[in-house]
Amino acid sequence: MKIAILPGDGIGPEIVEQAVRVLNSLDEKFELESAPVGGAGYEAHGHPLPEGTLKLAKEADAVLFGAVGDWKYDKLDRPLRPEQAILGLRKNLNLFANLRPAILYPELAGASTLKPEVVSGLDILIIRELTGDIYFGQPRGVRECPDGPFKGEREGFDTMRYAETEIRRIAHVAFQAARKRDKRLTSVDKANVLETFQFWKDIVTDVHKEYPDVALDHMYVDNAAMQLVRAPKKFDVIVTGNMFGDILSDAAAMLTGSIGMLPSASLDANNKGLYEPSHGSAPDIAGKGVANPLATILSAAMMLRFSLNKAEQADRIESAVKKVLAQGLRTPDIYEDGTTKVGTKEMGDAVVKALA
Amino acid sequence: MKIAILPGDGIGPEIVEQAVRVLNSLDEKFELESAPVGGAGYEAHGHPLPEGTLKLAKEADAVLFGAVGDWKYDKLDRPLRPEQAILGLRKNLNLFANLRPAILYPELAGASTLKPEVVSGLDILIIRELTGDIYFGQPRGVRECPDGPFKGEREGFDTMRYAETEIRRIAHVAFQAARKRDKRLTSVDKANVLETFQFWKDIVTDVHKEYPDVALDHMYVDNAAMQLVRAPKKFDVIVTGNMFGDILSDAAAMLTGSIGMLPSASLDANNKGLYEPSHGSAPDIAGKGVANPLATILSAAMMLRFSLNKAEQADRIESAVKKVLAQGLRTPDIYEDGTTKVGTKEMGDAVVKALA
Ligand SMILES: CC(C)[C@H](C(=O)O)[C@@H](O)C(=O)O
Ligand SMILES: CC(C)[C@H](C(=O)O)[C@@H](O)C(=O)O
Repeated sequence: MKIAILPGDGIGPEIVEQAVRVLNSLDEKFELESAPVGGAGYEAHGHPLPEGTLKLAKEADAVLFGAVGDWKYDKLDRPLRPEQAILGLRKNLNLFANLRPAILYPELAGASTLKPEVVSGLDILIIRELTGDIYFGQPRGVRECPDGPFKGEREGFDTMRYAETEIRRIAHVAFQAARKRDKRLTSVDKANVLETFQFWKDIVTDVHKEYPDVALDHMYVDNAAMQLVRAPKKFDVIVTGNMFGDILSDAAAMLTGSIGMLPSASLDANNKGLYEPSHGSAPDIAGKGVANPLATILSAAMMLRFSLNKAEQADRIESAVKKVLAQGLRTPDIYEDGTTKVGTKEMGDAVVKALA
Repeated sequence: MKIAILPGDGIGPEIVEQAVRVLNSLDEKFELESAPVGGAGYEAHGHPLPEGTLKLAKEADAVLFGAVGDWKYDKLDRPLRPEQAILGLRKNLNLFANLRPAILYPELAGASTLKPEVVSGLDILIIRELTGDIYFGQPRGVRECPDGPFKGEREGFDTMRYAETEIRRIAHVAFQAARKRDKRLTSVDKANVLETFQFWKDIVTDVHKEYPDVALDHMYVDNAAMQLVRAPKKFDVIVTGNMFGDILSDAAAMLTGSIGMLPSASLDANNKGLYEPSHGSAPDIAGKGVANPLATILSAAMMLRFSLNKAEQADRIESAVKKVLAQGLRTPDIYEDGTTKVGTKEMGDAVVKALA
C-alpha cells in the first residue's frame, strides 16, 4: 500500500516526521513517498500543487498531509498561494466528505476555555461537505454590478450551489456515521434565508427515509453556533455544507482547547482519503521542535482505519496516544502544572515506545 | 417623535410591553403606535409584514421590535413565514448597519459556559452588514444544473455579492464606532476562498486610510469563530458581512450566557433604526410571564441614543438596569442561587422604580 506524504509548510514537516516514525514502527510495511506542497511546492516548482505532487496523491492509496501556509506567501496572486493546494487536492481527488471529530480527552479538560461540566467527555463528529458550495461555485469574480441601486459600480460576487447528488452522498456518509455512534444527526442549514439550504434540508429529509433508526433534526447555522457554545455535548453527529462546516468545525475544535490533538479525514466515494491535523501550519513556532505531533499521528490512525483497512493498527496508535497522555507527557500547547513538558520529537518517541 | 411598536410573536408582546412602560415613565413624551408583525401580521392581515405595518415603520422616527416566529408557522410558504418580516423591514428601510454589543455584566459572569477569567469584563461590538450579501443576492432558486459533473439534475443556488458602496458605508460605520471605543477593528472575511470577501478586504483596507488612528486587522471567518471561543476579550469591534455576521454575532452573544440581556440596533444612513433584543421569540415560554425584558428595555435605550438623540435618557435606562441587577433581581434565564427570582412584569416594575 502506497501513502503519499505531503509535509507542507511551517510545522508541517516536523509533525509529519513523527507520524511517519509511528507508521514505520508498526508491523505492517507501507510504501511512503514524499512530495512538496503549499509554499514548499511553490518554492520547489513554482506552484502550490505541483504536477508531480498531484500525480503522486492520485496514485497513492492515501495521503498524509501536514499543513500549508506562511505569511511570506501572502502577497502572491491567489492561484499561487499555499491554501490553493488543499483546495486543489480536495477537488481533484473528489474528497467530498470531511470528518472532523471534536473530542476532549479527560486528561486535557483543563485546556478548554469552557467550564469542565460543559465540555468534559465531549465527543462530537462534524461532517463537512468539502467539494461543493460557494467554495467552487461558478460564476465568481469582480464585475460591474448588473442591476439594482449599485448598478455600474464594482462588485465582488460568488455562487453558492449544491446539486442533489452532492447532498445525497454526504447525507449518506452522515447517516452511516451516526449509525455507528449515538444514532443522532443534526443537519445544519440556513433554510430560512438560502434556497441552496432549503434544497439541502429537503434532500437530507428524503435520505432520512433510508435510515429510520437514526434521529434527524435540522438546525439553523446561527443557532448551531450558539448551541456549540451553550451545550456542545447535546450533539452527536453534525452534517453541513462546505462554508458552514468550515466555521463550525473550527469552533467545535476550539471548544476542546486542544486543537493540537484533533485529526481529520477527507474521503472520496471509495474511502480513499487525505488525512491532516485540524490545526494550521503555525509558522511562528516552526522549526522550534515544540509543535504537538499528536493530531498528525491520530490522522495517520484515521488513515489506517478508513483508507487502508487496518482498524487494528489504528486502535493501537490511538491507545498509544492515550497512554502517553496518561503518562503526563505534554507539548507546550497542552501543558499544565503537574505534567511533563516535552518537545515534538520526544512526544513522537513516547508514542513509538508506547506502541512497542 | 414617533416610535413604531412592533411586538410580534412568542414572548415579543410581553417584553415589549415592559419596554413601553419604561419609555412612558421617562420625562419625555413619545408618540407610540403599534402594529402586528410576523406571525401576528399573518394572523391579522395574511402577511408577516402587512402594508400598514411597513407604512408605520417607514413614517416613524424609530422602530421598537419584539421578536417573530413560532413553530406553528413552519409549514407556511417561505414568503409568508414570520422571519420574512424582519428581512423585509431591513431591506425596505435600508437598515444596513446592525450593531450587536456582546457585553458580560459582572453580576452575571456565572451564567456563561466559559470560564470566568476568559469572559469576565467582556465588551465587544459586532457590526454586521444587514442588507447585502447572500441574503438578498440574485439570482437564487432551484434550477437544472447548467454544467459540470451534475449537469441536468436539480440544484439549489444563491448569489453572494457586495458592491463597493455597500462595503464602504459599513466600513465607515465600523471605523467610527471603533474610534469611540478602544480604536481596534477586526474585519472578518474569507478572502482566501471568496472573491466577494477579497473585494471586501481590499475596500475595507482602502477606507482605513481615512482612519489612521484606528488599528485594523483582517481575520478569516473560521479563525474568528475559534478566537471568539479562545480569547474573546482580545476583540474590540468586529465588522463583517451579513452571513458571517449572523453566525458570529450569535456565537458572541452566547459567550455571555445571558443573551436575554443583549440589545441590538439596525441603522440606516441617517441613524433611523430598528431596535430589537438579540434573542428570539421563545414560543415555549410565551405568555408565562417569565421572559427577560431587559434586552428589549436596553434596545429602547439604544433607540434613544442612536435615533432619537436622547443620550441622557439612554444613560438613565442603562443605569437603572445595572441597579436592578445589583439589587439581585433575576428572571429565570439568568437566575443563580442567592439572587431573587422575578417575572417579566416585576422586572419591568423594578426598572421603572429604579428610574424614578
Ligand atoms: C485554507 C482554507 C482554504 C481551508 C478552508 O477554508 O477549507 C481551511 O480553513 C480548512 O478548513 O481546511
Ligand atoms: C430570522 C433570520 C432571517 C435572521 C437572520 O438570519 O438575519 C436572524 O437569524 C437574525 O440574525 O436576525
